[in-house]
Order: sequence, then C-alpha cells, then structure tokens
Amino acid sequence: MIKGLSRAGIGQVGSVENFAALASRFGFGAIDAGGTELEEWIAAAGRDGVQSFLQEKKVQIGSIGLSVEWRHDEDKFRAGLPRLAKDAQAAAELGVTRCCTYVLPSTDYNAAHFMALATRRLRTCADILGAYGIRLGLEFVGPHHLRTRWANPFIWDIRSTLDWIGAIDKSNVGLLFDAYHWYTNEGTYEDILKLSADQIVHVHINDAPDVPVAEVLDNDRLYPGEGVIDLTAFLKGLQAIGYQGVVAQEILRPQPLTQPSEELAAKSQQAFAKVFAAAGLE
Amino acid sequence: MIKGLSRAGIGQVGSVENFAALASRFGFGAIDAGGTELEEWIAAAGRDGVQSFLQEKKVQIGSIGLSVEWRHDEDKFRAGLPRLAKDAQAAAELGVTRCCTYVLPSTDYNAAHFMALATRRLRTCADILGAYGIRLGLEFVGPHHLRTRWANPFIWDIRSTLDWIGAIDKSNVGLLFDAYHWYTNEGTYEDILKLSADQIVHVHINDAPDVPVAEVLDNDRLYPGEGVIDLTAFLKGLQAIGYQGVVAQEILRPQPLTQPSEELAAKSQQAFAKVFAAAGLE
Amino acid sequence: MIKGLSRAGIGQVGSVENFAALASRFGFGAIDAGGTELEEWIAAAGRDGVQSFLQEKKVQIGSIGLSVEWRHDEDKFRAGLPRLAKDAQAAAELGVTRCCTYVLPSTDYNAAHFMALATRRLRTCADILGAYGIRLGLEFVGPHHLRTRWANPFIWDIRSTLDWIGAIDKSNVGLLFDAYHWYTNEGTYEDILKLSADQIVHVHINDAPDVPVAEVLDNDRLYPGEGVIDLTAFLKGLQAIGYQGVVAQEILRPQPLTQPSEELAAKSQQAFAKVFAAAGLE
Amino acid sequence: MIKGLSRAGIGQVGSVENFAALASRFGFGAIDAGGTELEEWIAAAGRDGVQSFLQEKKVQIGSIGLSVEWRHDEDKFRAGLPRLAKDAQAAAELGVTRCCTYVLPSTDYNAAHFMALATRRLRTCADILGAYGIRLGLEFVGPHHLRTRWANPFIWDIRSTLDWIGAIDKSNVGLLFDAYHWYTNEGTYEDILKLSADQIVHVHINDAPDVPVAEVLDNDRLYPGEGVIDLTAFLKGLQAIGYQGVVAQEILRPQPLTQPSEELAAKSQQAFAKVFAAAGLE
Repeated sequence: MIKGLSRAGIGQVGSVENFAALASRFGFGAIDAGGTELEEWIAAAGRDGVQSFLQEKKVQIGSIGLSVEWRHDEDKFRAGLPRLAKDAQAAAELGVTRCCTYVLPSTDYNAAHFMALATRRLRTCADILGAYGIRLGLEFVGPHHLRTRWANPFIWDIRSTLDWIGAIDKSNVGLLFDAYHWYTNEGTYEDILKLSADQIVHVHINDAPDVPVAEVLDNDRLYPGEGVIDLTAFLKGLQAIGYQGVVAQEILRPQPLTQPSEELAAKSQQAFAKVFAAAGLE
Repeated sequence: MIKGLSRAGIGQVGSVENFAALASRFGFGAIDAGGTELEEWIAAAGRDGVQSFLQEKKVQIGSIGLSVEWRHDEDKFRAGLPRLAKDAQAAAELGVTRCCTYVLPSTDYNAAHFMALATRRLRTCADILGAYGIRLGLEFVGPHHLRTRWANPFIWDIRSTLDWIGAIDKSNVGLLFDAYHWYTNEGTYEDILKLSADQIVHVHINDAPDVPVAEVLDNDRLYPGEGVIDLTAFLKGLQAIGYQGVVAQEILRPQPLTQPSEELAAKSQQAFAKVFAAAGLE
Repeated sequence: MIKGLSRAGIGQVGSVENFAALASRFGFGAIDAGGTELEEWIAAAGRDGVQSFLQEKKVQIGSIGLSVEWRHDEDKFRAGLPRLAKDAQAAAELGVTRCCTYVLPSTDYNAAHFMALATRRLRTCADILGAYGIRLGLEFVGPHHLRTRWANPFIWDIRSTLDWIGAIDKSNVGLLFDAYHWYTNEGTYEDILKLSADQIVHVHINDAPDVPVAEVLDNDRLYPGEGVIDLTAFLKGLQAIGYQGVVAQEILRPQPLTQPSEELAAKSQQAFAKVFAAAGLE
Repeated sequence: MIKGLSRAGIGQVGSVENFAALASRFGFGAIDAGGTELEEWIAAAGRDGVQSFLQEKKVQIGSIGLSVEWRHDEDKFRAGLPRLAKDAQAAAELGVTRCCTYVLPSTDYNAAHFMALATRRLRTCADILGAYGIRLGLEFVGPHHLRTRWANPFIWDIRSTLDWIGAIDKSNVGLLFDAYHWYTNEGTYEDILKLSADQIVHVHINDAPDVPVAEVLDNDRLYPGEGVIDLTAFLKGLQAIGYQGVVAQEILRPQPLTQPSEELAAKSQQAFAKVFAAAGLE
C-alpha cells in the first residue's frame, strides 16, 4: 500500500507542486489533487516537467476529485462535463488512474428518483473517465447525523454501494473505502475480507473520537492512531485481500487547521508510521 | 391504435385460446397473455397452429407479463430468469414484441437501495427480452393510497419513470402508459404531447369513479366511459404523438367479476366504441 | 419532413449566421452546422440572440457533425472528448438534438479489432451526447469503390449498421440515412418500410449519375432530381414510416463549387420542390 | 493458484462425479464441467449432496462452458438462452463463478459485422451470467493455421481481446488465458505483467511441440513440461500479478486419448508438479 495525503489534514499547503514536495519530504508516495490544478500545472511546467518533478519526488497523484456536480439539477450536471473531460485528459497525461466522489447518506429529493438520476449521471462520468483509463470511486458516508440531515434516507454502507455500482454497470467504478465510514457503519475485519481488491478504487484513513458511534460527527476526525477506530484490522483487512493502492489521509475538521503544513505533515507521517507498524506493514 | 383486452375485466374466460377467440368475436385485435400459457399453447398446437389461429381470428398477443420476481430478494429474482428466457422464446415465436411489469409506488425497502437493485435486475430482464426483439414496458402506478401503503415512497409518475428508464439504459425499455395512473397523477393532454410514440411500449385503458383524485383506489376501476377520466384527451394525445400500438383494457376490481365473459366482452366492446368515437378514432 | 441544407452543395456561404439566413431565404427549415461554430456564435451573440435569430428565420440546426476523431488511435480519440462535450453543450443550448458521423466501408486496421474499438469509442460519444439530449446518427457509406479503398472490408449497409447500433447499445444511437448510400446498396422502398422512424436520426438527400451502380463515386453527387436515384420511393418510404425529421441536402463534389451561394441555394430549392412534389409531399 | 483439470487430457472419465473424484485422487482442486451435467447432478443428488461431495473431495468446479451458440445465426443464439440461464442457475448453486468460451481467429462472415453481432450476443450472455455472480471468460485462440482457416481474419491476441471486452462493456467479462495461445502469439513474461489479476477469469495450461511457432497446430498439444512453452515464465507471470484462480489443464489432441483416465490423471499430476516446482510454486 502507498501512503498518501489529501489536503484535509495538512493545513494551507499552497500549490499542488508545493503539496507534492511536502508529501515527498515526509515520506508520502501519493497526494490527492484536483483535475484543474493538474491541468494548470501541466500548462505551466509542461507534461514532461510535471512528470519529472513527480518522479524525482517519488510522489504520484493518487486520485483526482470528481468535479462534476451530479447531485443537483440537470443543467449543472451538463455544464460540468466539458470540465470533467479536461480533468480526465490532464490526469491521464500524468498517469492518474483514480477519480473519486462522495455520496451523502440522505437527500431532500425523492430518494428513488434521485438514485435513478444519479445512476445515469455517474455512468456518464464513468464513461468519460474510462475513456482515459481512469476509475471512478464512490465513497459511501457513514456518520449517523448525516443519515437524517436531509429529508429522505439514501445509502451509506458497503452493500448498498456495491449494489449501486452494479446498477451503474461500468467496469471502472468501485469503492472509495474510508476508515471513518467503515467505522460508523460498525464494519468489521470480516466485512473487508468479503471485498476483492479490484472493488476498491481508493482508500481514506483517519480516526474517530471516543464517543458513541451514533454520535460521531463527519467533520470531527482525528489523525490515524489518535482515536478508537481499529485501524489495525482496517489495514490488515486491506492487506489480506491484496489491496496495493493508495491509502490517503483525510482529516475533516470543523475549522481549517492553522498549524504550519510542515508540522501537520510530520504529525501525519508519525501517525501513519504508528498504525502501519501496528498492522505489520512496511 | 389497436383495441385490446387483458383478462382484467372479462371474468373467467379460460384458456388463452378461448380468450383470443372471445376477443376476436367482440372486435378486439389484441389480448395480453402470459408467456407460460403461450409456451403451452405452442407445445399443444404447434407454432404454425397457433399462428394460423391468431391470424384467422385477427388477434395478436399485445404483451406478455414479466414473470420474473424482481421486487424481492436476489434468489427469487435469479430463479425466475430461465422462465423469462422461455417466455421470451415462446412470445417471439408468435411475433410478440412487448412485455410489461408494474412498479409499486412505495416499498418497505430503503428506496434508494431498492432502486439500485431494481435497475440492475430490470436491465437484465430487458437484455434477455431484447435478445428476442421484445420491449419491456414499465407501468408507473398512480393511486395515492399506494404511495403510502409501504414505508418508503418510490416513484409513481411519468418523469421519474422516464428517468429510471434512462438509468436502466437499454433501448428496448419504455412506458406502459395506463389511463388510471395518468389520471391519478393528474396528467394532462400536454403531458402526453411531451412523450414520443417510441417511448410507449403498451397502453392500458379504464376509467375511475367520481371521487376526489387522492381517494381513487387502484382496484376500483370502471369500464372506459363509465367514469370521470378524460379518455378523449388521453386517446387524442396518443393519436397526436403517433402511437399506433395496442390499447388494452384493464379493469381491476376488489372481487373477481362473476358475469359471463361474453357479457363482459360485449360491455367492453361498447365501452371502447364510445370512447374511441368521442376521440374521433375509428 | 423538414427541408434542410448542409454546406455541401451551396458553395462558400461563410459564417453559420449567413448560412442560416441563406437557408431561410430559399425556404429551408434546417441547416447542418459544426459544434464549434455554434459555440462561437453563442459567445458572440448570446444564446438568446442566436435563438431569436433562428426563430425569426424559421431555421433550426438539424445536426452537428461529430468532431471526435474515433477512427484512429486512442490518443486522438481522447484528445477530442473535451471538444465534444463543449460541442454538445453549445448544441443543446440551441435545442439541437442530432449529431452525426460517417462510417467508411473499409479500413486498414484489422476489421474486427477496429469494430471493437469503434464500438467502445462511439458508445462514449453517445453517452456524452445523451447527457445533453442529443442523438448520434451513424451514416453507412455505400459506394463500391470505397469498399475496397482500404485493405479490409468494414460495413456499408443498413442491416450491419443496425446490428452495430445494437452492439453500441445506447438508446440514443440511430442511422443517418443517406439516399446515395441507400442507392449504392441497391436499397428498395420495402427496405425503408422495415425501419421505424425512431431508428433514423437524420436524412441526407442527393442524386447519382446514370452510371452502373458499382461505379458510382462517392463525391460525384448530383442535386435531387438530376440523377437516377428513385427519390420518390425514398421520400415516400420515409413518409410511410412516419419520419418527421430533417432531410438535408448533401452534394459532395470532387472540387469546391464556385458558383455564388445564392444561385446554388436557389437550385437546391427547386430540386427539393421537384422531388418533394413527385413524392406527394408538401 | 489452484491446479485444475478439464476433460481434455484425461480420456473417458465418465460422469462429472467420477471426474471430480478422479481429480481429487490425483491432487487437483478444480475441474471444468458443463452446466447441464451440473444441473443433472443436482437433480440426482440434491444441491447439498453435490456440495458435500465436492467439499469432501476438496474439488471445486472451476468453470462451466458457455453452452450458447453465439457464433452463427440469431435463431440458434436465442434458442440457447433458456439453457444458459439454467446452466447459470445450476452453477451458482454450487458456487461456480466462471463460464468460458473460445473465439476462433477467423470467420466466414464479414469480420466487422460479426464482431458487432458477437459483441451484442456475448453482452447478453454476460448479463445473464452476471445475474448469478458468474464471470465470462473469452479465450483468444492463437495458432496460425486457424487465423486463415476461414475467409476473414478475426482476432487472436491479448490486446484485441481486451479491446473487445471493452466493447462488450460488462464488468464480469475477462480473459480465459491459455498458455498455448500466449505461446502462439509469441507472448512474453512482460506481456503478462501488463495484465491485472482481475482481468483473468480462467487459465488453461498445456505445452507445444518443438516446431516453428507458425506451424503449431491447435490440437497438437502436449502435457505441461513436455514441450517448448516457457511455462515457468507463464506461471511466474501469473503469480507476479496476483492471480489466485484455477489453472486447468487442456490437452487437445487429433484423436481421443485411449489410455485409462487414472493413468492420464497421474501423468497430469506429475506434469503439474514439474512445472509448478520450476516456477517456485507450491
């Protein structure tokens, strides 16, 4: 598995180039980035320049975010497709093979109707991404408070998300598997063993405070090893099924972190070292 | 448009052969049938025998019912697929090009999850039917009492059903458009004009009692022209968009009808004559 | 049916705005255009401005061309997808619902492998177009000399193209049906009757010189009524199946036409008047 | 990897039950079987009976053959779908997750048209199989003599077959990867490394005589280790990419083998032991 960082948890790191350099300095092999910033970086430094930089830093782009707004009306969705194609084009030039989006567990729309619309829309996104050799990861979101935040329950667990992926019916769609959502679904090691590695597009790691699981807030995340999630089981499960991709830290907080990025990256490095060691990894 | 009968509204008519003969006698050009009874009929009389009979009677099989149980668990669904393939095979031998199923407007399952499962399952059904040149019609169900009959709202109107058809993403899927459900959705002539004929796989006709629309019961249907549905607008709308397929009567009642089938078929014939004439048809 | 023009046959007409105005002046209700020129027009005149202009001129955009290069390598294909999304976006803003591409009847690639690649690529195009409510028309190309122009035979007739559309498996894909290719396939009125109107996305009209059908050259086209194609049967067939879309003139010539566009448009108007009248249309 | 047997190479072994018992006796963990014989076995012994037998013998059913005739006309194809659904049902009851078919490298049909038809047909098969959790493996066929056996070249290598799988566009379709076809395509270890384990549905192993590669006959196969195929590279490649499925022996011969099945199974056991050991496996 490749240790990775997202911007959530490292403060104001600046440009994607700075971000990649920081990640490299603290022993990370991947960062999550935005398609547009990749396009701009390529425009500025040239594809070869960016590739050389990343190779020198031994950092890959683990995943880009899905920039299309698929959660609301049709006009917004359509308006985002040219951008998605350009994101995918830029990402593919750098060898990126992952793009991810999250799925809120409730909705103000009629849930069945929205599921039908979202199925079609995400299939279109997957088709565009697939043309560039990029997989689409869907992140189910577990915290209980979000299941009732909007009027109608949507989906929030592995089983439903896999069934949804079956409905989307594109071979390049899989899970973004986040420790926080596994935990808030009270997932087990055995649940991970039921997955195959190729069903997992991307992984997020983080930790949760010691409060009742039904009270865990989505943006109250801790660094790996600081909380109560059994990350040893999490990482061992991923290891057991042969997952070899990126495990990227994602620490959502109610307020932006104000510490220097170096300090937060160092903290992240230590957090990864601790939980990976506990799981007998690297 | 071709006047058709389903078994709902003509009492105990017996075998499909009897049903076809009765329909013919009373001026109908189509009947809805079951795939299994068609297979058995072919087994007994030979494909040529059945075809000759239908040609002589000038009756076609307008649609078969979808025999697969797609609304519950995966085992039941799977168990029905061999039967579906045989239904489709038998139907195709008789030139049948339509297969239909209804969609209940609420569900005890999580509505979004069930939508995902149903999307995948109906795609599989559509794919099997498509191999035999058969289209799949989805019937949205409008009566208000069924929208809350089970715990979670599903879908019940044209727009949602078309969006679902987009999610299923097979070119041989369309609407079963039933006057009762159009009425209980307070559909208008203009709503029909927004459709294209090729979006409609099959049509049901019937009438509704003069009660508030939110109180109309699904199984309290009247013969065409006996109630308050504006069937003139309904038929004129279908005419305007160029629909040339079958319009089959479906009269669901709380109790089985006990009158002789001849009497009910004659009543149906007069009902069709009245509403078709009012719409300026044939 | 709506009489339409493409740029092939009217000389150097200039901007799309001029083209629309010219078409209007000579009684045409539609023009074929490029997605990029529509985007530029909208950028210059505003969406409302363009819409008003077209409404005033009573001209619609019948179809845009598929700008993606799907016939060669994967890099070229990918590179065209952002442009396609923007084309579709611009087209949709003007209510355009058709996009077309032609299919050469032979290839230097292994024909089976190329068919597999082209199936996937055109599905992706169809998916992007479908997101904007646009259908994709595939134009089979009949002239015999092109069937052996490259090393391996591909496809060139209705049956194969419909089967290909089945392989692509998107409900928004259909035929661009061109009189020239129908003729060079020795198509008949009965062949048209076997189609349904919704299988036809767009129609081209033109005429062929009186040479043996196997010797007809693709770029030796005449104006409707000047040659030997039975355009009466062609138009009556389309009428019989209920086709109500655009019939656009496409006159491919070995050299650019040098006459003034007004002269050629007037000639086109008379050509249409003649063949439409012969078919009992408008 | 699980050592497996097909019936090709073990003579007249009789019923599937006998076959499973024989495989078990000689240290194999899987056999390839037919869906119909599985259905009959279940009918005779009960699902639990068959499962117990297989568990006791430590033998799984590695793959069933695709019984549908997808290579010829539409009627034959359709006629096989009910059987396919029953095969899949029977296989799923025994936990079988693989179904395979081979692809001849030339065809008397127009290659592009046949590719389109075959794409649609195999998608339908994949959809039916997918409903039962079964993957479909496509076996490209490499021997040169078959590439020109019929009038038009089709496809015969990894790249084309993967592109075809992309055209079929179902996530449960992958390769049946056969050492003989890898060899006759002059495949390398590096070619295997380019694959991911989840692209491989099933593996065949065998060996080729020491004749020029262009002269290797499809039905002149030797037992593993008897010929010139670099099975060490083959197995190490599969190991390197993490393939953990069945590797089933398939020895096609011009004439049926007449030795006792025990003798041939013993020979097979020794052959596997030799090549697995050479590759550092088990």
